[in-house]
Amino acid sequence: MTDSGATVLPGLAEIAEVGRDTVRGGYSRHLLDGAERDLRDWFVERAERLGLDVEHDRNGNTWAWWGAPGPDAFVTGSHLDSVPGGGAFDGPLGVVSALDAVARLQQEGHRPSRPTAIAVFAEEEGSRFGVACLGSRLLSGAISPERALALTDVDGTSLEAVLTSAGIDPSAVGPDPDRLAGIGTFVELHVEQGRGLVDLGSPVALASSILGHGRWRFRFSGQGNHAGATLMTDRRDPVVAAAAAIAAVPGIARAAADVRATVGRLRAVPGGTNVIASTAEFWLDARAGEDTVTRTVVGAIVAAAEDAATANGCALEVTEESWSSRVDFPEGPRAAIDRVLEGDVPVLPTGAGHDAGVLSTHVPSAMLFVRNPTGVSHAPEEWSDADDCAAGVEALTTVMRAST
Amino acid sequence: MTDSGATVLPGLAEIAEVGRDTVRGGYSRHLLDGAERDLRDWFVERAERLGLDVEHDRNGNTWAWWGAPGPDAFVTGSHLDSVPGGGAFDGPLGVVSALDAVARLQQEGHRPSRPTAIAVFAEEEGSRFGVACLGSRLLSGAISPERALALTDVDGTSLEAVLTSAGIDPSAVGPDPDRLAGIGTFVELHVEQGRGLVDLGSPVALASSILGHGRWRFRFSGQGNHAGATLMTDRRDPVVAAAAAIAAVPGIARAAADVRATVGRLRAVPGGTNVIASTAEFWLDARAGEDTVTRTVVGAIVAAAEDAATANGCALEVTEESWSSRVDFPEGPRAAIDRVLEGDVPVLPTGAGHDAGVLSTHVPSAMLFVRNPTGVSHAPEEWSDADDCAAGVEALTTVMRAST
Repeated sequence: MTDSGATVLPGLAEIAEVGRDTVRGGYSRHLLDGAERDLRDWFVERAERLGLDVEHDRNGNTWAWWGAPGPDAFVTGSHLDSVPGGGAFDGPLGVVSALDAVARLQQEGHRPSRPTAIAVFAEEEGSRFGVACLGSRLLSGAISPERALALTDVDGTSLEAVLTSAGIDPSAVGPDPDRLAGIGTFVELHVEQGRGLVDLGSPVALASSILGHGRWRFRFSGQGNHAGATLMTDRRDPVVAAAAAIAAVPGIARAAADVRATVGRLRAVPGGTNVIASTAEFWLDARAGEDTVTRTVVGAIVAAAEDAATANGCALEVTEESWSSRVDFPEGPRAAIDRVLEGDVPVLPTGAGHDAGVLSTHVPSAMLFVRNPTGVSHAPEEWSDADDCAAGVEALTTVMRAST
Repeated sequence: MTDSGATVLPGLAEIAEVGRDTVRGGYSRHLLDGAERDLRDWFVERAERLGLDVEHDRNGNTWAWWGAPGPDAFVTGSHLDSVPGGGAFDGPLGVVSALDAVARLQQEGHRPSRPTAIAVFAEEEGSRFGVACLGSRLLSGAISPERALALTDVDGTSLEAVLTSAGIDPSAVGPDPDRLAGIGTFVELHVEQGRGLVDLGSPVALASSILGHGRWRFRFSGQGNHAGATLMTDRRDPVVAAAAAIAAVPGIARAAADVRATVGRLRAVPGGTNVIASTAEFWLDARAGEDTVTRTVVGAIVAAAEDAATANGCALEVTEESWSSRVDFPEGPRAAIDRVLEGDVPVLPTGAGHDAGVLSTHVPSAMLFVRNPTGVSHAPEEWSDADDCAAGVEALTTVMRAST
């Protein structure tokens, strides 16, 4: 295996031990847990060492300004949280590359001609509270503060309680239109989460679009009972119903064009080996190139789940936890970056959601992808070579030099 | 609803708040966790108030002797641990009824003519370490101490570590043949875990047999990846494989005679909504009237799971976590109890495992079941009416009076 990006990006090496998940492998860094707080502190310290002015916004996002804040700002950044057992690059690569780009430009004596900032967005993965890109959604008004504050984590603790105990005022959470209006351009650098760049033989690409995607919770309710004493014919077993629904997902997804449908999280309650569960839940992640296709596929999966519930004497409740329409990144910022990078940068769509996609509705946004030799992401095997990470920082530095 | 047994059994009322599970409902009382330790302390205090001599054996079981320990002892008792989110009666009813029977006999001035004890067995449900009846299995040599000590709970903590931190010497754990040989008769009173007594119109029954049963862990390994960026055709998704296997279980079980097969516990790792899991596990609980049938059914489920694994590019590992052959309780003790209770006590088989079943291989054992009006067990809805609990205590008192 070639050298990791951590060999050329000291920031990645500095945080390499923060939030390691010894059970799942990789990293578990979730909103305002111990590891994610450590990463916040680390970012503040790193930014201040560069002379940047750190500001915490009302939604848990962190901003580090090079020079005074102001209108038509150039903002770059990404996130520091991870999925459970995630990789080292998804999120941190964009933050660390931004810090490095600023450091290089400072060494060159570059002085930005417009307000410039690095942003770190909160709960991008939605791993603690279930809604991805929560920080950028709150900032842009894509989720109401009432709904967000009532979200609960797996222990039943609300976002409101978590923010309060972290010293963030929950009554201030919500849309931040002035901040949003002040962003002139947002550029997010991110590790690619597929093999698009491997096949193209290029270290860096620009994003064309993000699949529309959403998350739905399926909750089957049956009758908890004794696994040994209850006849097969007397059961209302929600695990069997949920399993039948999950087993139907790939066939339904494959029958439609450009669809990805996944169940990666599930649970049976109470969860005893010798207990017929009383409820079973799973979460469906579904995405497609066209929003109507996503809706149609999810409808077909819900219908299969209803059949499975009925066949097992169970009730089914389906809740939409989040929805993001397809994003087409605007031509302008992409063309500008391509010119600065002297052309021929490949353009790729992605199935992964990003804060840049959420912001894109309000702010001219673009994304730079860095090659991932295996394509694996959201897993410990996620990887980016040192040379490719260096190319990513070089590209972001070039863009910042030309844009600020 | 009629009055609960707690109105006639003060012991049930005393422990009614210990180990309540506010998430699942019911009770979660697992080996040497806070709630189960509180129950141990409560039992010791209650037994000592009756003047019994409390003894902790080398395997985590507790014995309260009425008079001096000795050979040909009459022992009654059950367990205090629960399944996750279990009911109030499964286990505690037998312990509380035994304490009440001793108290009544003492009030009558009865003096036992043979050594007499109440036993509380550890980890009967196997909810923390996966092997049911762990305390009685260790006592009787049905599991080796090496295997038991290496068992781990969901946090990866070994039984050895848990015992050590509870002040129980792990090096002493294992068969206790002298103690076993000293038991002349074992009688376990237990809430019925089906509707047998409802249909017979009787408050109390005697056990004829216990289905043979076992637990198997199915572990599917695939490739963790990004739920949005990974094409359906590029996936090796262990959740889909596990779901297909679980969905096949009821059909396979129903095709054979008198079989119960259940998946009540499952998990996906890492468990993120936007993550294709790298592994998925479930636990199969399977039981049948004939051991060969159980084996055949489990074999068919393993074959279906292997097909599902292959179809999804996953590897499958199946581990037998426990096995208990069918138990036929001996005629002698049952006939003696029936005589003492003046005949016509119904005799019922059960699908639920019990410490009495484990001990039955070595010790003349019998079980008294107390009616459960819904038949529901291992769930918060588990129930026993006050009148039936009183009838259970009356029967156990009568048996003890005649036997000791």
